[in-house]
Amino acid sequence: MPSKPRGPRLADIAKLANVSESTVSKVLNGRTGVSAGTRARVEAYLQDTPHQPRATKRPTAPLLDVLCYEIDSPFGSEVVAHIEQAARQDGLGMVLTGSNADNLPHPGWVGDVLSRQPVGVVLIACRLLEADRKMLRSRNIQIVVIDPAGTPAPDIPSIGSADWNGGYLATRHLIDLGHRRIGIITGPPDMMASTARFSGFRAALDRAGIAIEPELVRPGQFHHADGLAEGLALLSRPDRPTAIFASSDLYALGVYEAARTLGIGIPDELSVVGYDDLRIAQWAGPPLTTVHVPLAGMAQHAVHLIRRLGGEPELAFTRIDIDTSLVVRSSTTVPTKVSN
Amino acid sequence: MPSKPRGPRLADIAKLANVSESTVSKVLNGRTGVSAGTRARVEAYLQDTPHQPRATKRPTAPLLDVLCYEIDSPFGSEVVAHIEQAARQDGLGMVLTGSNADNLPHPGWVGDVLSRQPVGVVLIACRLLEADRKMLRSRNIQIVVIDPAGTPAPDIPSIGSADWNGGYLATRHLIDLGHRRIGIITGPPDMMASTARFSGFRAALDRAGIAIEPELVRPGQFHHADGLAEGLALLSRPDRPTAIFASSDLYALGVYEAARTLGIGIPDELSVVGYDDLRIAQWAGPPLTTVHVPLAGMAQHAVHLIRRLGGEPELAFTRIDIDTSLVVRSSTTVPTKVSN
Repeated sequence: MPSKPRGPRLADIAKLANVSESTVSKVLNGRTGVSAGTRARVEAYLQDTPHQPRATKRPTAPLLDVLCYEIDSPFGSEVVAHIEQAARQDGLGMVLTGSNADNLPHPGWVGDVLSRQPVGVVLIACRLLEADRKMLRSRNIQIVVIDPAGTPAPDIPSIGSADWNGGYLATRHLIDLGHRRIGIITGPPDMMASTARFSGFRAALDRAGIAIEPELVRPGQFHHADGLAEGLALLSRPDRPTAIFASSDLYALGVYEAARTLGIGIPDELSVVGYDDLRIAQWAGPPLTTVHVPLAGMAQHAVHLIRRLGGEPELAFTRIDIDTSLVVRSSTTVPTKVSN
Repeated sequence: MPSKPRGPRLADIAKLANVSESTVSKVLNGRTGVSAGTRARVEAYLQDTPHQPRATKRPTAPLLDVLCYEIDSPFGSEVVAHIEQAARQDGLGMVLTGSNADNLPHPGWVGDVLSRQPVGVVLIACRLLEADRKMLRSRNIQIVVIDPAGTPAPDIPSIGSADWNGGYLATRHLIDLGHRRIGIITGPPDMMASTARFSGFRAALDRAGIAIEPELVRPGQFHHADGLAEGLALLSRPDRPTAIFASSDLYALGVYEAARTLGIGIPDELSVVGYDDLRIAQWAGPPLTTVHVPLAGMAQHAVHLIRRLGGEPELAFTRIDIDTSLVVRSSTTVPTKVSN
């Protein structure tokens, strides 16, 4: 193990802030019994001196904190399961907490993390406020983001997958089958992943000399309901597309339901490509052609990175993108003439 | 808070076992540095004297340990999400660990739990070996089981749902629609839940004067693949059933795929009822009629029970079953004459 950079000791901070060492320890470990003013003053000194050695011994069984948006979504639960496995193999217990609807932790979470003293925090489609990030950093608690919900802070290492490549592969597959009118349901524009997938879609069309049709580009929030609503919108058009690139598997299930409602057969009358390759993709009827996102590999990289960051602070600027691939199942085929 | 029964102090155990207090503390908290023989001796004394006061102070942010079979299954992930929410509202951080394929913890798990000193352990479709259960008990770490995978030990409180009632409701719904040839895919026979659902199915048929047809009763392990295989078997029969009670939502998705493969329309040519009312039930095409299992309520009861057990050991024999209900969506309708 590389030795960790050492900052000033408790005694030095106590001297600077003109308080007792026990007060510094309380603030450091998120405990109560310190006035707000004193806490803020000590906090300021702590954050001026990052990579603080721990004031108290870490518990025998070390912990990894995970903050996850929508734990019970198909995406969230699969990432969590992979992280649990990677953490367990690395001797870490996983503390799992759900975020609020804005992808932020609930009040009190950071204080709890400080008192638990985990080796690190993995954020799954979540973000932290600047102040919280500083507090964790000043306690030498590492942070890694998986598949960031927005543009990550430049000093938080992040693990993603090759979204542009995935969007390109999905669209290219449809073009190779002979499709020319291809709809897309895109993700939230403030998510890098959405933008990259759409950009891959556009590049594949460009390369094939197919002009993009703005009315076939529909927005969503990566939920099933968006896939259903936008699927209905696309498929109700007199000049409906012969294929839809649903840029998440949940969208694809919504498009399936839209097609079923309108009596349009998949894949004979409509080809559909999803994105993520979650378990639900295999269970769909017909089984869904989709872009495989390497969640297991991403989880392993996240845990390893947490472990390495303590000794190699320069890794704080790391961005790792793992490659995506296309999984062809039964929801795509050559286009037939639309009969309306 | 009721006061906890107090057992002998560390010093007493140390005297009995003829070791130092620090050795007793190490064994109590799952730490290393004690020979196997000494550990076994101290363990024996500890387990003779349950409801031991903790040797060391619990960390500031108290923990709840959760052991779950198949974290990323639709069932596991939804229960976990509800427990996380209930635990968070109760000020508990949730440590989540996956079990092995036999519903048992991986090696080392119990030692990690001892060192983390959680207020309790919730088992989701998991079980513990007798020795592990004793170790947790002797440290005053409470255990509660959710929806047990087998017959739970009589002294572990468990939270379930009204499985018999659910099986009855599902079958009664199909009978009320006019179905007489009803297939069922049952769960593993060693699971109480499977037996109770099947018993409810049988009771509803009995009450309607319909003889059970053994060849329409098919076994499975609650996986999608079973639903597909057994669905194909049932639907390939010349006298195929007009309805199938798939006793899990995953089975139902498998039956959907079997029907799609054979060109049998749902619900017009086949009615399907699932069980669990997981999110995937709403996303199915058509949306699935199913039995609602109150996972949120079960999770809340589990966390509350953990909290109360410390002060009220007589609750150790509790079994709570929460009521189930039928959710009618679009996968069931009146039977049509089968045309083969």
